[in-house]
Amino acid sequence: MVKLENSMNITMSDSIVNLDHGDPTAYEEYWRKIGDRCTVTIHGWDLMSYFSDVTNLCWFLEPELAEAIKELHSVVGNAATEDRHIVVGTGSTQLCQAAVHALATLAGGTKPVSVVAAAPYYSTYVEENTYVRSGMYKWEGDAWGFDKKGPYIELVTSPNNPDGTIRETVVNRPDDEEAKVIHDFAYYWPHYTPITRRQDHDIMLFTFSKITGHAGSRIGWALVKDKEVAKKMVEYIIVNSIGVSKESQIRTAKILKVLKETCKSESENFFEYGREMMKNRWEKLREVVKESDVFTLPKYPEAHCNYFGKSLESYPAFAWLGTKEETDLVSDLRRQKVMTRAGERCGSDKKHVRVSMLSREDVFNAFLERLANMKLTKTIDI
Amino acid sequence: MVKLENSMNITMSDSIVNLDHGDPTAYEEYWRKIGDRCTVTIHGWDLMSYFSDVTNLCWFLEPELAEAIKELHSVVGNAATEDRHIVVGTGSTQLCQAAVHALATLAGGTKPVSVVAAAPYYSTYVEENTYVRSGMYKWEGDAWGFDKKGPYIELVTSPNNPDGTIRETVVNRPDDEEAKVIHDFAYYWPHYTPITRRQDHDIMLFTFSKITGHAGSRIGWALVKDKEVAKKMVEYIIVNSIGVSKESQIRTAKILKVLKETCKSESENFFEYGREMMKNRWEKLREVVKESDVFTLPKYPEAHCNYFGKSLESYPAFAWLGTKEETDLVSDLRRQKVMTRAGERCGSDKKHVRVSMLSREDVFNAFLERLANMKLTKTIDI
Repeated sequence: MVKLENSMNITMSDSIVNLDHGDPTAYEEYWRKIGDRCTVTIHGWDLMSYFSDVTNLCWFLEPELAEAIKELHSVVGNAATEDRHIVVGTGSTQLCQAAVHALATLAGGTKPVSVVAAAPYYSTYVEENTYVRSGMYKWEGDAWGFDKKGPYIELVTSPNNPDGTIRETVVNRPDDEEAKVIHDFAYYWPHYTPITRRQDHDIMLFTFSKITGHAGSRIGWALVKDKEVAKKMVEYIIVNSIGVSKESQIRTAKILKVLKETCKSESENFFEYGREMMKNRWEKLREVVKESDVFTLPKYPEAHCNYFGKSLESYPAFAWLGTKEETDLVSDLRRQKVMTRAGERCGSDKKHVRVSMLSREDVFNAFLERLANMKLTKTIDI
Repeated sequence: MVKLENSMNITMSDSIVNLDHGDPTAYEEYWRKIGDRCTVTIHGWDLMSYFSDVTNLCWFLEPELAEAIKELHSVVGNAATEDRHIVVGTGSTQLCQAAVHALATLAGGTKPVSVVAAAPYYSTYVEENTYVRSGMYKWEGDAWGFDKKGPYIELVTSPNNPDGTIRETVVNRPDDEEAKVIHDFAYYWPHYTPITRRQDHDIMLFTFSKITGHAGSRIGWALVKDKEVAKKMVEYIIVNSIGVSKESQIRTAKILKVLKETCKSESENFFEYGREMMKNRWEKLREVVKESDVFTLPKYPEAHCNYFGKSLESYPAFAWLGTKEETDLVSDLRRQKVMTRAGERCGSDKKHVRVSMLSREDVFNAFLERLANMKLTKTIDI
């Protein structure tokens, strides 16, 4: 076993580099450049009621947010919004739980509904589906090889968190009425991946934080075909938190509208900016990994992006970093004060970790430096 | 049985008067008068991170909100904040569930922990404690007469929702280490009730919406003595929604600071304003009820208010309206297009309903008018 240690105590700063969470602060600089166009001003007497639109099934959804969401999807072409209910949530985290709850409620059986996701999966799915120890649904782990009879819910994240691959369902029981799917499209935006089709599934989740970087706002939305499912999701959110912050909704609406406008601009196109930044980071990271001869990264096929109108590569929001050696990678990195998410938490192994690619530039550079030094140390060790 | 119907079709507007929810829009006018002092301006690049203060156990709590909360409690004198952890939540709704979850987790047994509240209780407690069908805790209903052995959690709301009474625990097992209490002090503010003591309990819940009327912001906070309990509550909120809207937190901080400042003012004192408004509404309602000879309202003892420095009455945020007749009051009111919450949902009977006293003035007046007419109709009926 190779110990990946840096015993050389070199010039790097000594601070902790936290790339465990996907805190998307990388985009701060862009919004600074955009300036006051995204500024919101809220008076003391604004937004006081619980209610946003009593005529809407999702009565706590601000109409201007609904409008901004529809317009953005239309411009980007990544998801169908016609004949769908929009349900707003406190991040897509709350919405994913609302959707599982809704589907399990409507399944109506006495036994808990199975919940699965193909490994490697978003580690938080495990916690979300186990922490309240619900009798309505049960986390059954990896969808590969899942063969239990009865109702089940498959969570499909595409591009996938943590490994950036394009995903479809893997259980595949097309004629089974008890088979339900929740599509998590948090990363299905043109700065991360080619937009190859307009998604059109029953339940599609999106989150503001991963599009523009506004994680602090805690805004997500679901596009839901079936009215009963949408209704049950709304009921979940009412009992869980009586709706969703109006301030965050109003601000999200404003920023999404500005984002949409930049799509027409050559110099200010947000997705162009985001794509360039991600490309740059991925190229740097691939360079370090190539030099190291110890680490691995997935390769992604090029595909035609309908948004950019050309064939493009993928630059996922997380790097699924692996090692060729038999080592506990998350601990090795922790010794370099680099915090990442353990592959085991994602249903994978010790040789993989999930690394956020969305930190501030200086943090990302410190990570690269430490990673490069780990390689050097290993060479000396051998 | 007396049918309380209005067959006279008089001058009242025909619109629905919704006093089911406690939507606190009554205070809008006050905040309009206060003007721009409460205005917040948020730039596009502000508040992007998940994190507010990584040194705090509750790392998603904005430091300026923590400060504003402590200052306000200090000025009002309604709760001790020293040596306590502040946990912020998406309304006290999310916090109540976080607290039940935390206490049930720490109880550590294999059987679900009982959750009780003395009737009449806040109807939403039932939904909050049943909707996910958790195996960790179980709603056991009315705390009066509860005598199950083993760990339990008592929810104490004081002043009580729906009936405005001052409450203490009713199960009372002071030497039982398995006895836990969550105090919901949503209405323990000087516009509703005399502040007779500085509360000093283990877990105390507060909510922005009922103090100032900003329900749309979905901000609540818990003052928690025990570090482990606070930690588990934070864990719940992380899995439930990865923190709480930063926009709402920043705005709440600003408004609470202005509120605190008005406490020193003779002309602008918010609690004075709120108290006068509530007094006025209660006097009008008591007048209608007195005239009717059909309806009943609870009476509240005067008490010395430490905040106002004099003996004062209570003016609860909800009226617990009863009838002397054997009738289904919620249906009778619905026929008048007045929506209220059924007493049965609060663990009480058909002869009681909960009526919000915090609507806009015109809605409140329409309610009074319809109530008065119901009385007239009854007289004619007899």
